[in-house]
Amino acid sequence: MRVYVATTNFGKLREMEKLFADSPLELTTFAEYEDPVEGNTSYAENAALKARALHAQLQRAGRPSAVLADDSGLEVYALDRRPGVLTAFYGGATATWPARRKKLLRELERTGSDDRRARFVCALHFIDEEGREFATMGTVDGTIPPEERGDDGFSFDPVFFYPPANRTFAEMTEDQKNRVSHRAIAASALLAGIKTAAN
Amino acid sequence: MRVYVATTNFGKLREMEKLFADSPLELTTFAEYEDPVEGNTSYAENAALKARALHAQLQRAGRPSAVLADDSGLEVYALDRRPGVLTAFYGGATATWPARRKKLLRELERTGSDDRRARFVCALHFIDEEGREFATMGTVDGTIPPEERGDDGFSFDPVFFYPPANRTFAEMTEDQKNRVSHRAIAASALLAGIKTAAN
Repeated sequence: MRVYVATTNFGKLREMEKLFADSPLELTTFAEYEDPVEGNTSYAENAALKARALHAQLQRAGRPSAVLADDSGLEVYALDRRPGVLTAFYGGATATWPARRKKLLRELERTGSDDRRARFVCALHFIDEEGREFATMGTVDGTIPPEERGDDGFSFDPVFFYPPANRTFAEMTEDQKNRVSHRAIAASALLAGIKTAAN
Repeated sequence: MRVYVATTNFGKLREMEKLFADSPLELTTFAEYEDPVEGNTSYAENAALKARALHAQLQRAGRPSAVLADDSGLEVYALDRRPGVLTAFYGGATATWPARRKKLLRELERTGSDDRRARFVCALHFIDEEGREFATMGTVDGTIPPEERGDDGFSFDPVFFYPPANRTFAEMTEDQKNRVSHRAIAASALLAGIKTAAN
């Protein structure tokens, strides 16, 4: 099944292609897609908003198709769960990821807190050709290391330490990360839901 | 794994017990659980609210445990998707289900609309012993028949006609319904997410 992904983030797209590589979903993108203004209420709402926007765009373009959207964020406990649903706007909507990571480490340092706990959250929202919707949400727990570590990964991966692997997400291989990540959990759940619905 | 269900609705509990019968989850209830006031923003938020309330209650009671919550509703297209997230309050919080079904049929009749489309939505929210959260959402499309049909099922099942089976949800056996329902889709997705997270 061809599925258009509602994203303008190539790191996410690449990761999703890997996560759905052995599935019946063939991911593709729609060049004219633009992210709608996010509601900032919850990951689930943001993902639904993006999926519905792309679904409507494709229908208007005469290409009704299944779509998939992702909304994710990093929640740092000592920062009252920020950046959270506002992750994409952390440091300003045009901030680079290195700048955001630096800001995060500095901000956490300034709190003086010993609590380094954090979690990644990923919400996925799928709409099939007939307009049926499914959604899933996964989380993974970790801590914020004192400084960036690792070159792989994107977004906040270099500042997310995953204790079971004793590495940051950016120090893990794609395959390692894709077995345990918030997005992997949400993706496997989504596939199961789609399979049940197809029966 | 023992999982406490955040519900005071025995129909839901019974259905969830069936849906998770062959899974590693052993469902149980906590007698002191009371539904928190629902936020009425979205199914996902309501389910999360209930799960977090029960998770906190069990921790305070010295029994930290995994919990599962459900929030679901019926969306009638010609009624602007009502009752929707407010399904539990339709006709007033103390209205009986027969009264709610009657009200729904009457209200739809009054619109004079030919559009009988409706969908059931179910959001599930799971929190494991360590506090990790997963959530899923499933939907199923149908229509509102002119009058109630069938004795099985609960809530709006007798007024939800499922075209592929040519029956209302209340005319289908539990097994039939549990293969296709909004809650079945959400449940199978949830199990897949839990399995991935346990790896």
